[in-house]
Amino acid sequence: MDATDAQTACFEAGIKFGTLYHQFAGTPVSPDSADSLARAMEEAIENQPYCESVTVDVLVEELEAELADSAADYTELTGRFVEVEMTIDYEGTEVRTRMDMQDGYPLMRVEDVSPDA
Amino acid sequence: MDATDAQTACFEAGIKFGTLYHQFAGTPVSPDSADSLARAMEEAIENQPYCESVTVDVLVEELEAELADSAADYTELTGRFVEVEMTIDYEGTEVRTRMDMQDGYPLMRVEDVSPDA
Amino acid sequence: MDATDAQTACFEAGIKFGTLYHQFAGTPVSPDSADSLARAMEEAIENQPYCESVTVDVLVEELEAELADSAADYTELTGRFVEVEMTIDYEGTEVRTRMDMQDGYPLMRVEDVSPDA
Amino acid sequence: MDATDAQTACFEAGIKFGTLYHQFAGTPVSPDSADSLARAMEEAIENQPYCESVTVDVLVEELEAELADSAADYTELTGRFVEVEMTIDYEGTEVRTRMDMQDGYPLMRVEDVSPDA
Repeated sequence: MDATDAQTACFEAGIKFGTLYHQFAGTPVSPDSADSLARAMEEAIENQPYCESVTVDVLVEELEAELADSAADYTELTGRFVEVEMTIDYEGTEVRTRMDMQDGYPLMRVEDVSPDA
Repeated sequence: MDATDAQTACFEAGIKFGTLYHQFAGTPVSPDSADSLARAMEEAIENQPYCESVTVDVLVEELEAELADSAADYTELTGRFVEVEMTIDYEGTEVRTRMDMQDGYPLMRVEDVSPDA
Repeated sequence: MDATDAQTACFEAGIKFGTLYHQFAGTPVSPDSADSLARAMEEAIENQPYCESVTVDVLVEELEAELADSAADYTELTGRFVEVEMTIDYEGTEVRTRMDMQDGYPLMRVEDVSPDA
Repeated sequence: MDATDAQTACFEAGIKFGTLYHQFAGTPVSPDSADSLARAMEEAIENQPYCESVTVDVLVEELEAELADSAADYTELTGRFVEVEMTIDYEGTEVRTRMDMQDGYPLMRVEDVSPDA
């Protein structure tokens, strides 16, 4: 069957998460550059169709803990260091999504689907 | 509301497309390296959860046409040079998806959602 | 033979250029998000060893020209839309480098090598 | 001063390393997909100018050790899982380079510069 609007909204939400993660994973990041990276990630993804809002937290405390055990003063961005909230609106269906660490894995998930009343 | 299995299947399909595109866009590619890149893209994405199969065509004729007008003998991978088919299975819901060029834009879309009978 | 300090400085400069280009190529970008992307690129690369300074211009006029012919209001970052200047200092050897479009190709090059006096 | 041919050769070698690492870091990888990814990395980088040869080993034993502690059956490519050798030839200067783990960090380095006899 053809996808419903709500299913398409979820598909679009997934595209944004895959984009965000795999475009920016591997970026050199430090506590000092965490903010500029978070802003760039938000604004880059908000360009994409149906994307209402993106909030990215690069977790400075997690970065600091990682770097305390390291000779380097920066590391590479990976899921351990970032939390994301994103809202997609496709033809009136709003999808709220989230990524954070669950059991050692950066879990992307749909939190709420709100079909048009 | 919580996502249905079919909505989650579509979300998972979107993640794979965003991953595939933004992990590999920008890769140096030529007619000679098109095949190894296509195989690596397929096998990389098939690692991801719920991903049944991925077929990637890197379009050698499009690459050749681009390079005929160029001093270089390679270019960067972008949506003009690739077609993708992907099948996701989440808890018995099968989602078939596709990406190819539509109106000058690499359009990712859901072609079919088959809830469990 | 082992690399001289000046040769190593040039090697390090090359690493930064390859990083900058291939980390960020493919990022969704629009005139509105050009600035945040440029800042993130600069600060990300400045994290890397021996990197004194990075200046990134995302070329808003080139983006606007591209989008004037397009149904979309964003595009993907590629070499046509960015100019970069970078200074590397390795053990007292300073290397100045630049990337901009030359003959339709984003040319990365060493402009000056200044061994310690 | 302008760069010598040997300095330019080292700059070109650095570009290839930055490209290889930041294009492919983050790719979903498993023991089963290690080979196709390694081949794609080699052939992609060999497209670039002055690149004579690239050898990529994706370290299956390291992947297996990582996954033994994980609920997942794949991970993301990072420097821990890859060793690279690369030879650049620029105007008769041959540069041999290598990347492997040193002190917990994927170290890219020039091993030999052989100016034309």
